[in-house]
Amino acid sequence: MCYKHELARYKGIVEEKLFAIVDGCGAPKDLKSAMRYSLEAGGKRLRPAMTLYVCEMLDGDIRRALPFACALEMIHTYSLIHDDLPCMDNDDYRRGMPSNHKVFGEANAVLAGDGLLSLAFDTMLAAIANNPCQGEIKAAQAVSEGAGVQGMVAGQVADLASEKSGARDMDTLRFIHVNKTGAMIRGSLLAGGCVAGADEEQLKALSDFGYAYGDLFQMTDDILDVEGSFESMGKTLGKDAQEGKLTYISLIGLEEAKKIAGRTAEKALAALEIFGEKAWLLRELTNATVSRKS
Amino acid sequence: MCYKHELARYKGIVEEKLFAIVDGCGAPKDLKSAMRYSLEAGGKRLRPAMTLYVCEMLDGDIRRALPFACALEMIHTYSLIHDDLPCMDNDDYRRGMPSNHKVFGEANAVLAGDGLLSLAFDTMLAAIANNPCQGEIKAAQAVSEGAGVQGMVAGQVADLASEKSGARDMDTLRFIHVNKTGAMIRGSLLAGGCVAGADEEQLKALSDFGYAYGDLFQMTDDILDVEGSFESMGKTLGKDAQEGKLTYISLIGLEEAKKIAGRTAEKALAALEIFGEKAWLLRELTNATVSRKS
Repeated sequence: MCYKHELARYKGIVEEKLFAIVDGCGAPKDLKSAMRYSLEAGGKRLRPAMTLYVCEMLDGDIRRALPFACALEMIHTYSLIHDDLPCMDNDDYRRGMPSNHKVFGEANAVLAGDGLLSLAFDTMLAAIANNPCQGEIKAAQAVSEGAGVQGMVAGQVADLASEKSGARDMDTLRFIHVNKTGAMIRGSLLAGGCVAGADEEQLKALSDFGYAYGDLFQMTDDILDVEGSFESMGKTLGKDAQEGKLTYISLIGLEEAKKIAGRTAEKALAALEIFGEKAWLLRELTNATVSRKS
Repeated sequence: MCYKHELARYKGIVEEKLFAIVDGCGAPKDLKSAMRYSLEAGGKRLRPAMTLYVCEMLDGDIRRALPFACALEMIHTYSLIHDDLPCMDNDDYRRGMPSNHKVFGEANAVLAGDGLLSLAFDTMLAAIANNPCQGEIKAAQAVSEGAGVQGMVAGQVADLASEKSGARDMDTLRFIHVNKTGAMIRGSLLAGGCVAGADEEQLKALSDFGYAYGDLFQMTDDILDVEGSFESMGKTLGKDAQEGKLTYISLIGLEEAKKIAGRTAEKALAALEIFGEKAWLLRELTNATVSRKS
């Protein structure tokens, strides 16, 4: 089977539920429009797809994983909206479309982000209320850990601080990527695992894979930012490099970054071993990421 | 017993736990400082006090209500941080101190708010994991409903929209206050009730009281803004009135607003009847609010 086909299948499942949740959430019209605008701007829905895939891989019921998958996409989207704000990265475009604050204004963009984060937790609490199992509770905690002050928000703060201080060291760079990217990918994998009743060893393997894959994703993003003509993560060509941001390339150069990316991919693949053949999608995704051209 | 003394007692209990949660939350130092700054700026801790009081009033264990009380204060604080941002109300001061973005910068203020909202849910999920009861799950849902896109965030969006459109009608004003103020007060009361195992009739009464008290609080705030020299909700004297914002006074005049405040207080008190003597604190608080001088 082709991993791209499977990702597209998960994307369809996620989007159907995601838009149904937002449409039925009871938000006033203006707020709903601003939230939906950024959710519709789309992308591959990689995080929620990982949640659903891991759940199926471990013989879980993806209907139980779906609310957590949708919550992850809402949290990812809120983080992009806040990240694009003039006081943050000040990006006028996201995935080729005007960013949320360019369309709805800054104040509404802040509130659309706040609304999506709130709705994500509301969705997970409804899933817990509906099925008050350990799996559901642990899945919500995994998402919360990835999104919060020990995860993504911590990464954003460190990213800002490094730009201000001009910090240029591997520890800072790793901290930013582990938290800003890795924590949410890890949370996505763990959420699927928790719902499927994964044991400690399996959860540890998913956690290891998540951090490694997050790191790899960021490295190849940095490499592509320098090497090619592409549109990745909504950034225009070579913007990070042009702006002298802290990246793997600016720190250790292109060739060394490629070597480390290869080793990180091996680490990610090694973490998957305990799942055998069943982890084929994560394996193909890793191989595709290390040699990605876009 | 004096209600002020009781509120001070709850304030002490809440603050001890609140600062312990933030100190132990694993956020990086910079983020923790920004979050703590606004939490320490304090206030009466009215919302979490209501949670603890209602829990005790219904013979519940306030140790179980405490995580929800702290979550409510974190959510209230995040909303103040985001509300003060230049793109929102653009307030340089909050409770006589420089607002969060004046001290930590706008980007960090956005993230401190995001961090507090995330930590609030993280705290509630930990309480559920620790004690996976219907009471805990329902309490978290009540808080989430008050904070989210059907509650406080909806109120903020409506407030912004009314300023832009110049809407001047009672329906708009009521919608703003019910959602911006009433929903979180209602959530605070319901959270205490849920943990204590309140029945449907009791929850309905708490909900009715919450909306009425929230409305009363906002009306008397508007009245004081015009009448006296005071420092309320962190706004300087008569700022709302000066800026021509939509208030009860601008809409129906001072005398009519006072009459409606009296009737709203009666409505709030009527909702408390089923609790008898035990609801004394909420009763005294209502009487003090309707005749408040500060």
